[in-house]
Amino acid sequence: MAVYTQVDTQTIETFINNYDIGNLRSVKGIAEGVENSNYLITTTQANYILTLYEKRVKSEDLPFFVELMSHLALKNFPCPEPIVQKDGTVISQLNDRDCTLVSFLNGVSVVKPSTHHCYAVGKYLAHLHEYTTDFASQRHNALSQPHWRPLYERSKPRTDELSKSLPDMLERELDWLDIHWPKDLPSGVIHADLFPDNVFFIEEKLSGIFDFYFAATDILAYDLAVTLNAWCFDEKQMFNPHLAGAMIQGYQSVRSMSKDEVNALSILCRGSALRFLLTRLYDWLNVPPDALVTPHDPLVFAQRLKFHQDSDLTEVINFSANT
Amino acid sequence: MAVYTQVDTQTIETFINNYDIGNLRSVKGIAEGVENSNYLITTTQANYILTLYEKRVKSEDLPFFVELMSHLALKNFPCPEPIVQKDGTVISQLNDRDCTLVSFLNGVSVVKPSTHHCYAVGKYLAHLHEYTTDFASQRHNALSQPHWRPLYERSKPRTDELSKSLPDMLERELDWLDIHWPKDLPSGVIHADLFPDNVFFIEEKLSGIFDFYFAATDILAYDLAVTLNAWCFDEKQMFNPHLAGAMIQGYQSVRSMSKDEVNALSILCRGSALRFLLTRLYDWLNVPPDALVTPHDPLVFAQRLKFHQDSDLTEVINFSANT
Repeated sequence: MAVYTQVDTQTIETFINNYDIGNLRSVKGIAEGVENSNYLITTTQANYILTLYEKRVKSEDLPFFVELMSHLALKNFPCPEPIVQKDGTVISQLNDRDCTLVSFLNGVSVVKPSTHHCYAVGKYLAHLHEYTTDFASQRHNALSQPHWRPLYERSKPRTDELSKSLPDMLERELDWLDIHWPKDLPSGVIHADLFPDNVFFIEEKLSGIFDFYFAATDILAYDLAVTLNAWCFDEKQMFNPHLAGAMIQGYQSVRSMSKDEVNALSILCRGSALRFLLTRLYDWLNVPPDALVTPHDPLVFAQRLKFHQDSDLTEVINFSANT
Repeated sequence: MAVYTQVDTQTIETFINNYDIGNLRSVKGIAEGVENSNYLITTTQANYILTLYEKRVKSEDLPFFVELMSHLALKNFPCPEPIVQKDGTVISQLNDRDCTLVSFLNGVSVVKPSTHHCYAVGKYLAHLHEYTTDFASQRHNALSQPHWRPLYERSKPRTDELSKSLPDMLERELDWLDIHWPKDLPSGVIHADLFPDNVFFIEEKLSGIFDFYFAATDILAYDLAVTLNAWCFDEKQMFNPHLAGAMIQGYQSVRSMSKDEVNALSILCRGSALRFLLTRLYDWLNVPPDALVTPHDPLVFAQRLKFHQDSDLTEVINFSANT
C-alpha cells in the first residue's frame, strides 16, 4: 500500500481554498486501497479524504461514482460524502489527476467477521439497493457475465502456470454459466465489490461503506452473491453457513428477494466467484515490475467456486428464513 | 513513501488496550518519513501516531529517543509525547518490531520557508538545547566528525560515478576538517536532522518538531549549522542570507552563542554539508533493488559545501546581530 502521486502541502493548502471547509491543520498521505492516492486532510472544521485517481478509475466514470455517493449520503447512507466546491462542482484536478474531497468515515475493518457483522452488511447492502431505485444514472458493468469469456481469453495462454486443472475448470464454468445465467432478475445499482476492507465498524455498529469504484448497473441479487463470497468463507476457504444465513437475513430485513432471486443465488455465487477468479488471475499474470502491491491469490476463488458447484444455497436461505 | 510493516486493525484494537486512551475509532497507515512504519490512530480521546521501527532505528537507541521526547514534552516543547502504557513502559513490540505510541501533532511542513519560519526554527532549536541541559542520558553521535572518513571509505571506489571531481573534493575536505574541526565548543543534546519536513507550522506558528532518530550528544552549534544548511538554500542551491540571519537571530533570542561558537559556524557548516553529502552518497550508491524511496541527490550538498568553502558566515551573523 502506498501513495502513488505526491502532492506537497502548499499545493493542498491552496487547493482547499476551493472549498468552504475552514483552515488546514494537517495532511497525511495514507496507504488506503490499492488503486488511488489518498490524503487524510484535517481542517479547523473536520477530517476529509482527498483522493487522486490513478489510471484504473476513468475520468468518464467518475461522475457516476461521485453522484452515487452524493445520492446515498443525502439519504444518510454511511458512505463518504463528496464535498462541493465553492463553484458548485465536486470533481477537480491536482497534479494531472482527477480528484475529489469526501467526508472522513470513522471505523475499522473487521478481519474475522461475526454473524452480527454479516447481518449488518446484508442489511446495508439492501439499503444501498433500495435507496438507489430513484438514482437516474446508469453505468454498464464492464465485469458482468458477458465479459468473462473475453477476460479469460487474455489470461488463457498462461493460466496453467497457476494450476494444471484450472484451464479446464474455467472453460467448463464459462460454458455452464452461458447457459444458466439468469436473464430477468431485478437490476439496479450494485456496489459490486463489498469486501470486508470496504466496510467500517465502530465496535459492533456498521459505520461506513466505501470504495464505490466498481459500482455499476447489474442484477441486484448478484451483488449479494459477491458479498456472500467476500465475507462467508474462512481462511481455509470453508463456507460458513451461519455467516451467510445472517447476511441473507439482514438483506431480507430491508428488501425481500423474489422466489426467482432466491433460486438463482447459487448460480450468481458461481458467477461472482468466477469473476474474482478471472480478474485476480489476470492481475497475477500481469504484475508490473514496479508494483508496490502483492496481487491477491486467485486460487482462493477457485475453491469458493468449487464449493458453489457442489452445493445448494437454498438450504442456507431456508434456514435463515426460519430463524 | 510507504508503510513497510502491515498490522491488521484487530491487532491494533487489542494493542491499544495496553493504554488508557479510550476506544478505537480509526486506523490509517500513513506514508510519513522513509525509515519506519507509521499508523495514525484515532480513539474516543485523541489522535496518536503508532510507529513500528524498521531496521535503521536500533533497539538499544530507542530508550534515548523516547526519554528525550518525554523530557521535552514535559517542558511543553512541541514534540510528540510518548504515551505511557498501563504497566508504566513506553516501548513495546508489534509484529516483531519495537513500537511506540506518541501524541499526534497538528500542522504542515513548509516547502518555501520564510524568514518568519526560519526565526521560529532557530528559536525552538535553542529551546531544545536549553531544555536538555538537565537531560541525563547521552548518545554517541555515530555520524559525528571522526566517523566521516570511514563513512567515505565505504563509498570511495564508486564515488566518481556521480562526478569526476567529487573524490578529490571529498578527500581535501576530510583533511581540512581533521585540522580545523573545533574541539572545545559547548556540547549537549542535538536534533541533528532538523530539515523542513521534520517541522510543522499552523499558519505562521511553529506547532511541531519531530523525528528525533538522529538525536545524539554533540556540539550544540553544529546542530544550528545542520539546520542552516537544511533551510537556507533555495532550489538553485543559492544561499539566502536573510533566512540564515533570521534563524541565527531566533536562536540567539533564546541562547546566546559564545564568540568561539560564532567564529566556528562556517567550519561547522562545512562539516554538516559534508556529513549529508557522505550519507546521501552512500545511500545513492546502495539503493536496494526493492526500494520504495528515491534517494536524495547527494550533489546538492556538494554545492552547499562549496558555498561554505568560499564564504564566511560572520557577515551574516553580524548583520543579524544588528537588526
